[in-house]
Amino acid sequence: MSATRSVTAPVVLLTDFGYRDHYAGVMKGVIASIAPHAPIIDLTHGIPPQQVAAGALILAQSWRFFPPATIFVAVVDPGVGTDRRPLAVATRAGARFVGPDNGLLWMAAAAAQITTIVQLKSTRYRLPNPSSTFHGRDIFAPAAAWLARGVKLTALGPRLETMVTLEPAAGVRATSRSLTGEVIYVDGFGNLVTNLSRAEVDRFAGRCGRDRLSVKVGRHPRFGLYATYGRAPAGEPLALFGSFEMLEIGVRDGHAAVHFGAGAGTAVTVKMGK
Amino acid sequence: MSATRSVTAPVVLLTDFGYRDHYAGVMKGVIASIAPHAPIIDLTHGIPPQQVAAGALILAQSWRFFPPATIFVAVVDPGVGTDRRPLAVATRAGARFVGPDNGLLWMAAAAAQITTIVQLKSTRYRLPNPSSTFHGRDIFAPAAAWLARGVKLTALGPRLETMVTLEPAAGVRATSRSLTGEVIYVDGFGNLVTNLSRAEVDRFAGRCGRDRLSVKVGRHPRFGLYATYGRAPAGEPLALFGSFEMLEIGVRDGHAAVHFGAGAGTAVTVKMGK
Amino acid sequence: MSATRSVTAPVVLLTDFGYRDHYAGVMKGVIASIAPHAPIIDLTHGIPPQQVAAGALILAQSWRFFPPATIFVAVVDPGVGTDRRPLAVATRAGARFVGPDNGLLWMAAAAAQITTIVQLKSTRYRLPNPSSTFHGRDIFAPAAAWLARGVKLTALGPRLETMVTLEPAAGVRATSRSLTGEVIYVDGFGNLVTNLSRAEVDRFAGRCGRDRLSVKVGRHPRFGLYATYGRAPAGEPLALFGSFEMLEIGVRDGHAAVHFGAGAGTAVTVKMGK
Repeated sequence: MSATRSVTAPVVLLTDFGYRDHYAGVMKGVIASIAPHAPIIDLTHGIPPQQVAAGALILAQSWRFFPPATIFVAVVDPGVGTDRRPLAVATRAGARFVGPDNGLLWMAAAAAQITTIVQLKSTRYRLPNPSSTFHGRDIFAPAAAWLARGVKLTALGPRLETMVTLEPAAGVRATSRSLTGEVIYVDGFGNLVTNLSRAEVDRFAGRCGRDRLSVKVGRHPRFGLYATYGRAPAGEPLALFGSFEMLEIGVRDGHAAVHFGAGAGTAVTVKMGK
Repeated sequence: MSATRSVTAPVVLLTDFGYRDHYAGVMKGVIASIAPHAPIIDLTHGIPPQQVAAGALILAQSWRFFPPATIFVAVVDPGVGTDRRPLAVATRAGARFVGPDNGLLWMAAAAAQITTIVQLKSTRYRLPNPSSTFHGRDIFAPAAAWLARGVKLTALGPRLETMVTLEPAAGVRATSRSLTGEVIYVDGFGNLVTNLSRAEVDRFAGRCGRDRLSVKVGRHPRFGLYATYGRAPAGEPLALFGSFEMLEIGVRDGHAAVHFGAGAGTAVTVKMGK
Repeated sequence: MSATRSVTAPVVLLTDFGYRDHYAGVMKGVIASIAPHAPIIDLTHGIPPQQVAAGALILAQSWRFFPPATIFVAVVDPGVGTDRRPLAVATRAGARFVGPDNGLLWMAAAAAQITTIVQLKSTRYRLPNPSSTFHGRDIFAPAAAWLARGVKLTALGPRLETMVTLEPAAGVRATSRSLTGEVIYVDGFGNLVTNLSRAEVDRFAGRCGRDRLSVKVGRHPRFGLYATYGRAPAGEPLALFGSFEMLEIGVRDGHAAVHFGAGAGTAVTVKMGK
């Protein structure tokens, strides 16, 4: 029986609501009310408040680890109550994304290859009398749950041709002597995740190889690239390519954000030589 | 097949256990052991420690967004180990509530229209040898799971005629010139949720309308009511009716609790005129 | 139908990833991709970063509250990227444990009576090209999900004869006049959990009984043992046997870790007399 049992695609939540309040929990109630068979998975509710770019990065780096038909509901939404549009997006990879049109969904949806974008306008697939402050509960969670129930994306509202884009790598500057990006996310261990991808750093290193590179955070002394955290001396800073293939800066047995006094926006420079 | 597949009512958890420890996780283990088909949903474990009124408010404002037959287990229980009674409550709306008899369940259960109250006394539906410190695991989680398994509420113990009540709105004072309530909850964004309902404020505003009202927190300068967060100037305080229809005070792109040095109990006054 | 419906064993997660990041969420995506029918339960992601002993204690005190065939994935893994081995362990009690071979799994697995240990080497049951920093996602989550799918433990890799052990009680010193242990975990309420078990303290108290014992934390004044938190005077320290049968030190309506300036490693002494 377990072989033939069908599984509803999971609904996966990413928000900046934190874990103190009931906001994320109430979204789960709405989803369970509409689509009781859909597994509900918390990706994270720990996106720093209103940091749309951090949410976009995390979503872009997470979606491909979920089942193909997963429905992602992402809510980092400083413009709630203004005229920013609520969206649902279908992709060639199968993943669907529901959330505000503020760039949050862009990186993930583009990587999954967008096929259809709709504006969530149908009153049939929202809660009655949506509030102006909690579209996660009143508009996004219901839309995701109805998708999980099998409603077609295009039933949720009119098609759109475009959506707001957001490209963290847009800020990377490369010269023949250095490659400069910035911190786009500080993780819970204090590691600094940058917008410098492994591909970009490899292109910069060229034939010389990564072993000869050094890294600088703000005005602090340079340090080297290591293959793993475990290889750096205790208390020392190091750069490595983290689990998501972006240049990441840590301190062995320490907290890089505190060590460097760094946060989102801090400049990170890669150079040839020590 | 998915059309006929039956779904067990979810068991929904609200506690002040936080996310650091395993306490909430162990409750989920107990529930999964007794009722393996019941979906388990975390509403929140972030109620401020031992703040029964905050937990009661959050439960009251959340329960109606869950499926009708949901079983809520709520544990904010400073009196654990004393002689406060453990309860289960059935309601006309269908929701069932399990937790300590300290007022925590009252607002939600009353709104859902109480039909039956029982004291959790049956040793058959608890873990053997309950501890004196962790009734969430030993008494409340098993009771909820057995309800999810189909056990009747009245099998869990003897009926009670009454339960402890808790009414946050009891502290509201209205005169012809002002309406005074207090902060009852600070959310994770620092917003101050008061015990002044939209209905009460509208009654006070009368024919003059809400546009002419101003709000005062402690001894700070007055400020206005807005329809949405997005409409207030950055850095400025504002009042609005939040997603749960209570007067809520925020600071656009800021943290109202820090801005006002306010917390649970801080007085909030609404007046006519600026 | 619900009577005959089979349930897949749950996959239960314990990590030190915290709730800010997507790391735990991505592990859930990997598990849902491989074993879509397996319920996924968060035990906790709040183990203090890289505190293997704290994670081991929590796992040891939690596993028996879950269904017998539960698959636990535990990741507190400071040695990720070095040559520490990835393990899966089967036990007589039915529980299976997946995680790094650094002592994290030992206490729980030993209590559940180890039958088989394997090293996770089969490339078939990992993600392709595992990273050097995130074995939780690339090695441990897939192994657990394949076990939930019904793959045999011994298919995951070669058998091992031994695993790394970790015994918190190893540090307890008993004389005829005192029993000295240490804090091994500070819970989210600030309570100090020690490595002194109820059995050990009862053995020390002997015929005199626990009522005559007093407890000392560091150089602070002695205080007594109580049966429940509710019985101590407000603001006063107390010792009791917490929900997990270890001597635990709290402050009534307070925060013991702050009160005593104590943390993991602080000495705790039990003596006869006040």
